[in-house]
Amino acid sequence: MASEFDLIERYFKRPVDPSLLGGGDDCALLSVSPGKRLAVSKDLLLEGRHFFSDVDPYLLGHKALAVNLSDLAAMGARPVACMLGLGLPTWSDVWIRAFADGFYSLVDRYQCPLIGGDTTRSQRDIVLSVTVFGEVDDALALKRNAATVDDDIWISGELGAADLACRMLSGELALQADWLAATRGALEQPIPRLDLGLALLGHAHSAIDVSDGLLQDLGHILTQSQVGAVIEETLLPMHAVIQKLPIETRRQTTLGGGDLYELCFTAAVSKRMAIEHIGRTLNVRLTRIGQIVERSGLTVLDAARNEIKALPDSYDHFKEPA
Amino acid sequence: MASEFDLIERYFKRPVDPSLLGGGDDCALLSVSPGKRLAVSKDLLLEGRHFFSDVDPYLLGHKALAVNLSDLAAMGARPVACMLGLGLPTWSDVWIRAFADGFYSLVDRYQCPLIGGDTTRSQRDIVLSVTVFGEVDDALALKRNAATVDDDIWISGELGAADLACRMLSGELALQADWLAATRGALEQPIPRLDLGLALLGHAHSAIDVSDGLLQDLGHILTQSQVGAVIEETLLPMHAVIQKLPIETRRQTTLGGGDLYELCFTAAVSKRMAIEHIGRTLNVRLTRIGQIVERSGLTVLDAARNEIKALPDSYDHFKEPA
Repeated sequence: MASEFDLIERYFKRPVDPSLLGGGDDCALLSVSPGKRLAVSKDLLLEGRHFFSDVDPYLLGHKALAVNLSDLAAMGARPVACMLGLGLPTWSDVWIRAFADGFYSLVDRYQCPLIGGDTTRSQRDIVLSVTVFGEVDDALALKRNAATVDDDIWISGELGAADLACRMLSGELALQADWLAATRGALEQPIPRLDLGLALLGHAHSAIDVSDGLLQDLGHILTQSQVGAVIEETLLPMHAVIQKLPIETRRQTTLGGGDLYELCFTAAVSKRMAIEHIGRTLNVRLTRIGQIVERSGLTVLDAARNEIKALPDSYDHFKEPA
Repeated sequence: MASEFDLIERYFKRPVDPSLLGGGDDCALLSVSPGKRLAVSKDLLLEGRHFFSDVDPYLLGHKALAVNLSDLAAMGARPVACMLGLGLPTWSDVWIRAFADGFYSLVDRYQCPLIGGDTTRSQRDIVLSVTVFGEVDDALALKRNAATVDDDIWISGELGAADLACRMLSGELALQADWLAATRGALEQPIPRLDLGLALLGHAHSAIDVSDGLLQDLGHILTQSQVGAVIEETLLPMHAVIQKLPIETRRQTTLGGGDLYELCFTAAVSKRMAIEHIGRTLNVRLTRIGQIVERSGLTVLDAARNEIKALPDSYDHFKEPA
């Protein structure tokens, strides 16, 4: 059995720009450009809670960093560096090398070097804790409290695929092989919308990633901006498979389904053309789904423009697993 | 059962200077003073591995932040902020309130506001992940690679108490109530040496906290500074209880025992008076235990000035538990 130091030496020692002072001291020392702020975020991912025990380690390494980078994307921050806490009850060379490869695939893609962390033996479950650092101009950062009455509400990508895959894999919904094939990529290998977040600086007012589901996360923007919203169900972009679901499941999945790393953002009506241009340039589907209004609360209209009264539960990491 | 948001709202929402943008956005936004660097460190603490299941939650909250602050101390950094990842299989109001009180006791003492994090339900074990941020002048930071031949080697406080308490509590050594009473504070409520770290800026060359044990941690300084060291066993400051132990246990505990948040640092001989003055001012015992030498390797001399050949194992978080 290798020791903690062997693990770091063997798997997590790829070159880092020395100006960041990577592994090998009590702290890493980050530089911040003048006039910028450091955006920091951390997420805990636990076996049996956020991923299945038999998860592909490459995909797990990818996702552990992706979900954290998504928080930078939601503020329009540029990645600077990341740290990894890794608790393993046991490990094999093959497993940890695949995990490291998945993790480093995003380190490399987004130039977000791994500068330190902590590895330890856990009692029973795999424990992952990632902290990411990004840089953003304070005046432009996409904050949750900046939505303005009459703003358009936009969403990137499509809703529902990750949630559907998760429900099939957990046994909550009957597994259909073709549906799973079509949706599990969204669950297991989400792409953080970093390019989009950066492109929205100066265009969008507020943004959030919908990792806890559209209703809940848009709700955070509304609460913190002290505004309300009306969204139209017929406008929601959804994966083709989701359109085949019974209406209640479809609503649960599109409005309440979490584990989705798309951006929900708001922007003035005058910015529509600029934002559509960004979508085309980045090849990301961007859809207007509603409007910010003065009256507080979140209203969802159905196809007949009637308010949907029974809105689905939102995702909550602290609920009992289904 | 409260939700994730209730937990944060109820227990972890004490006021934060708004310039730091605390909880409530995808990231916290940290400012860094011109000419400074941000020192960042993270540690993972796992039930059954770093603390016992029946640990006092107040002490656990204290220790979770203390061990991270100790990494800032070892670089001479001033605390700026911290983040907390908390995974709980179940919780009671009393437990989590006590945990939060312990955590905030150090937040307040060292002005290190909690600016964000993540709470989640774990499957079985309590999982803690803390990230701390500090600020340090890059030119003065106490780095592991800066020890210089002929430097004195210093240690703060006393060696061995935390290790002895841990061995008695784990059943490895027979429990003696009076010994446990004398030593468990060192294990359960360590005080990070932040004031000392700051005071050593401009005086010490290199520093490390001896959380993995003196031999191993001093070894990191030697490796990274490409030097060697000779230390004298008779000079090692130790808790009165440790002096009563049989010689082998005493050596294991003082030289190999981890979970100790004292600083081991090196400084030029010309700095002796300045360092002794710092010790008196801060009321911290500071002891010279040896010298940095050119020849690589770490030599420990016994009372007869003979080299001790059989040095104890060092602490390793990735080893099987005893």
